[in-house]
Amino acid sequence: MSADESILDLVQLAHVELLTPDLDGSVDFFSRLMGMSISEHRTGSVYLRGYEDPYHHSLKLTAAGAAGLGHIGFRVRSPQALERRVRAIEATGYGRGWIDGDAGHGRAYQFDTPAGHRWELIWDVDYYRAADADRSAMKNRPSRRPDHGIPTRRIDHFNLTAPDVAATRDFLRDTLGFMEREAVVADDNPEITIASWLSVTNLSHDLALVPEGGRAGRLHHVCFYNGTNESLFDFADLCRENGIRIEHGPGRHAIGKTTFLYAMEPGGNRIEVVGDPGALIFDPTHSTVKWKASELGIAAVWTGSEFPPSFWQYATPDEALTHLDAAVA
Amino acid sequence: MSADESILDLVQLAHVELLTPDLDGSVDFFSRLMGMSISEHRTGSVYLRGYEDPYHHSLKLTAAGAAGLGHIGFRVRSPQALERRVRAIEATGYGRGWIDGDAGHGRAYQFDTPAGHRWELIWDVDYYRAADADRSAMKNRPSRRPDHGIPTRRIDHFNLTAPDVAATRDFLRDTLGFMEREAVVADDNPEITIASWLSVTNLSHDLALVPEGGRAGRLHHVCFYNGTNESLFDFADLCRENGIRIEHGPGRHAIGKTTFLYAMEPGGNRIEVVGDPGALIFDPTHSTVKWKASELGIAAVWTGSEFPPSFWQYATPDEALTHLDAAVA
Amino acid sequence: MSADESILDLVQLAHVELLTPDLDGSVDFFSRLMGMSISEHRTGSVYLRGYEDPYHHSLKLTAAGAAGLGHIGFRVRSPQALERRVRAIEATGYGRGWIDGDAGHGRAYQFDTPAGHRWELIWDVDYYRAADADRSAMKNRPSRRPDHGIPTRRIDHFNLTAPDVAATRDFLRDTLGFMEREAVVADDNPEITIASWLSVTNLSHDLALVPEGGRAGRLHHVCFYNGTNESLFDFADLCRENGIRIEHGPGRHAIGKTTFLYAMEPGGNRIEVVGDPGALIFDPTHSTVKWKASELGIAAVWTGSEFPPSFWQYATPDEALTHLDAAVA
Amino acid sequence: MSADESILDLVQLAHVELLTPDLDGSVDFFSRLMGMSISEHRTGSVYLRGYEDPYHHSLKLTAAGAAGLGHIGFRVRSPQALERRVRAIEATGYGRGWIDGDAGHGRAYQFDTPAGHRWELIWDVDYYRAADADRSAMKNRPSRRPDHGIPTRRIDHFNLTAPDVAATRDFLRDTLGFMEREAVVADDNPEITIASWLSVTNLSHDLALVPEGGRAGRLHHVCFYNGTNESLFDFADLCRENGIRIEHGPGRHAIGKTTFLYAMEPGGNRIEVVGDPGALIFDPTHSTVKWKASELGIAAVWTGSEFPPSFWQYATPDEALTHLDAAVA
Repeated sequence: MSADESILDLVQLAHVELLTPDLDGSVDFFSRLMGMSISEHRTGSVYLRGYEDPYHHSLKLTAAGAAGLGHIGFRVRSPQALERRVRAIEATGYGRGWIDGDAGHGRAYQFDTPAGHRWELIWDVDYYRAADADRSAMKNRPSRRPDHGIPTRRIDHFNLTAPDVAATRDFLRDTLGFMEREAVVADDNPEITIASWLSVTNLSHDLALVPEGGRAGRLHHVCFYNGTNESLFDFADLCRENGIRIEHGPGRHAIGKTTFLYAMEPGGNRIEVVGDPGALIFDPTHSTVKWKASELGIAAVWTGSEFPPSFWQYATPDEALTHLDAAVA
Repeated sequence: MSADESILDLVQLAHVELLTPDLDGSVDFFSRLMGMSISEHRTGSVYLRGYEDPYHHSLKLTAAGAAGLGHIGFRVRSPQALERRVRAIEATGYGRGWIDGDAGHGRAYQFDTPAGHRWELIWDVDYYRAADADRSAMKNRPSRRPDHGIPTRRIDHFNLTAPDVAATRDFLRDTLGFMEREAVVADDNPEITIASWLSVTNLSHDLALVPEGGRAGRLHHVCFYNGTNESLFDFADLCRENGIRIEHGPGRHAIGKTTFLYAMEPGGNRIEVVGDPGALIFDPTHSTVKWKASELGIAAVWTGSEFPPSFWQYATPDEALTHLDAAVA
Repeated sequence: MSADESILDLVQLAHVELLTPDLDGSVDFFSRLMGMSISEHRTGSVYLRGYEDPYHHSLKLTAAGAAGLGHIGFRVRSPQALERRVRAIEATGYGRGWIDGDAGHGRAYQFDTPAGHRWELIWDVDYYRAADADRSAMKNRPSRRPDHGIPTRRIDHFNLTAPDVAATRDFLRDTLGFMEREAVVADDNPEITIASWLSVTNLSHDLALVPEGGRAGRLHHVCFYNGTNESLFDFADLCRENGIRIEHGPGRHAIGKTTFLYAMEPGGNRIEVVGDPGALIFDPTHSTVKWKASELGIAAVWTGSEFPPSFWQYATPDEALTHLDAAVA
Repeated sequence: MSADESILDLVQLAHVELLTPDLDGSVDFFSRLMGMSISEHRTGSVYLRGYEDPYHHSLKLTAAGAAGLGHIGFRVRSPQALERRVRAIEATGYGRGWIDGDAGHGRAYQFDTPAGHRWELIWDVDYYRAADADRSAMKNRPSRRPDHGIPTRRIDHFNLTAPDVAATRDFLRDTLGFMEREAVVADDNPEITIASWLSVTNLSHDLALVPEGGRAGRLHHVCFYNGTNESLFDFADLCRENGIRIEHGPGRHAIGKTTFLYAMEPGGNRIEVVGDPGALIFDPTHSTVKWKASELGIAAVWTGSEFPPSFWQYATPDEALTHLDAAVA
């Protein structure tokens, strides 16, 4: 690949590990209400997936003293792509080295981002193999559509807080090939990035970065895809009927154009469910769409209901978070 | 009520009894896939309801040698309304007399229509009382929205075959106060009624009558309400994934303007699921909308897919049925 | 009709007259964005209807110095029903007498409610007769579905403020036959009614009454029916793209179970668009579902986003309104 | 890029040119009912786009004696990618050479596939620049969401007939880098490909190839994306109300998992509208999902309504087409 072309080595968000102080409650939420299926139980961890996720799992739930992010796993395009990215990461000094693997995948290279989150890159994966009772009549579906929950089709994206959004964005772009799709910038200087949405796929974002006050980054939310706006109303019903706190929605973001519902899973992590996947980005010369901080309201909620303060203040693990609006001010 | 005003004594379809040669299969279909809850088991019968049905049950499943209709139950507006209708029915000679009641309701007056179907009128009903575990956070909901199945909100309407549609329609109109909302008539004579849609509510139809070849009437289908077009796609998914035969849909009828999906429950009875409830009729001087037999195609399916022959030929109990199109010719 | 049975003389909300200081802007909003069609222009007034409204109009827009309600028109079941209701109204002292009629209907009997709003009862109506170019291929549709706007199917309900909600509710119930379906009551006394939802149809409400501070009642909102939750997202898009202020939504009310989007039409009146029509009430012995004032939050918004203060404070004509929450306190 | 990695040079379907014997009728269909906007008129051709298509146009309508395909335009990732693909095409002998460009894009390299369809590859494109009146309040939207039609968001994919599906599939894969996502194969030999679905994006297919009887390939359909299942019911309404023939739908394909409605535009070309975009494919080692010819029914229509014979027989230009089912037999 000639030097003046983009890095195309990362291909998808493979899995997210969430930490939860209420493992049983979190498993009930993701399996019964979100309609995800359990692939495997291990000591202290439960592995789950949506019915259209192709691999062993897309979500790992791990018992812990506090809610938060365990790690992020991205899959690469090829063994050579993995070698290229490991060399690039090691050159930055953020590399941590190889692990033998985990349930559902082989050896993985782990590293920390400038925001302090643990990530890993994987090539070898185990495909989910449905037992007869779980096999779908649809040959291109890894498993049968569940008869309960909304149900969840696949993992979609995640959102992290970062002490220095621009530095983390630059690392993800220059070292891993993420493209910045949209950003919130200072009113008086479009070069000052406050929040950033990036992807390596045709999705408008595989992840988002929002401001954090000073310490290491935390988890703002993880998002799963259900594919219909109707599912947002269905999920709101299930949340209300089962004592799950809905933070906001249904609504539509202008950024990414996705529709959303936000709720708090029993472990305390914020979960987003996306209906309309928004607009895909195929244009290889797409330039970052920049929203001014003063336009954040409409950028965040295109429909008619502003986010409550908690959306700007709460992340996991739960500590007082410097407000995004404060950071913006 | 002065003589020149309409009869307003019947107020709603309360329940339908279906006969099934596969009681376990039918119960699994209605509870797990349709998301109805079981109110009571009795020897040979199981009683179910949708989560917004207010009474003890809206569906009674009874084990039998063949699929078909057990009986239809309508509720009246008041004790006086019941007395008035019983007198009117007895005057026609179609009355059969009182029964002490059934699970979920008190004494009922039974009668047969000219089409040969067993009906009953009831006043005393038992409201569904949810146990704590089943209580909804929505105070105006009789029970919690289920976390499985589409799920079904309430019973909607039913469709019967009749040897003489016009005679049965006249009986229902003159004796019980049903208003004919729409009809299919002969191309050359709008006074010759081939099929009829009637209601006592604001719904476009509480029941429909379609032609039958010579013998006593049978059951074409029973319909349940889920309230969203999305639920028709969801239900199609659940049917395909669980070996339930989908006969037709999703689609929209021009008659009644409702959207639909038709499937065959394990006992063999045809079930319709309705998404968009169509247009309600509030106009007290609404005149019957008449479709010519030659317009039946668009009247039956406004969207883009014609019904398969089975829709015109199959009813329960299953015997060779004179085709509606034949009857029309 | 025996004395112990309910009054069944009113059958539907026929039309609402809105006053607007920006007649051209209001007409553009209701025709281009709401997809209603213009039936007639008269000096100072424009008459519109949704494509499934059966009569000449369901909305009359009249130029005025300030936004607000002109009058409400209900249709009765029969000429005798009209005579009965006029006698009952005259007995209360609230009657104002007959007018010759208006575009689209014949003589009407006008009266004021205890809340000070002008209402009229009508029997003679003009059905909408579509010109060839506007005729629908669907014979039971009064006119072709428009190719623009969401579009609106029919008028649904309205919401008024009242200095004394209970007194107005009693007048509507005892004199006109409205049934109270749901209510918000004082936490410490369920007999103290703060807000009330009433209907004469199977709808959960044809109108609602909310508290007003001391002076004559005003208009909180008028609602139109589009029939799908998707239309709420579509309408939000059209509002944002055309400079219409969205106040709240999409969301679902627990009261009535309808889904909603609220926006301010150019004249300043609050408009609601309803997607899911919620649960119909067929039960003749339905008892009022009572929500405590402390439960108002979930009763008003079942989904995840609280109403902004304006929802509790703004009505037309726009004057400082005693807060509902204040009234509740 | 090392030799053992895939070709990543094509990035998206940029535009399709349709030939129509009724240019005015086709323009009215795509602009008024599909809600696409007109970018430019040229002698004999009109250029249109959906409101989220980023470039000058995604659809070129050209007056001609018969309906059919003009040409297909794909965009490449970079100038170097264009050079690489041109060299590869020229090596196959299918190349035709460079043209100076067309409205909306610069120089393009044209070639014919083994199926006989004209394609072109482009790098230089003109972005759509909205006039003030057409500018969206959503900064990441190239133009305002229209207030009429469904409306169309973007072009999605196309389907062509091919005398030799496997040979054309191999050309697209080996020369251009298309990945085969799904296929219909002979019951007795999975290596015999009857139909093929391919993409260079995360979409399940950017194009499909179906059998043709002997002569050069033709057009089966072009598909546009609207993003909601509700829009399929809305579009069916608009088609019926405006004399547009609906061929089939709403329904869901198992192949690709997309939901669909098929209609015939006034020029005679078959158009598909897609609601649910189906499952995206992120897995770089995704292997072709193979459906046996005997499974074609469920593969084509997962929901409950089989395609009418015309779907298997009609393509444009309209000549007797060897039936796919015959080809399968």
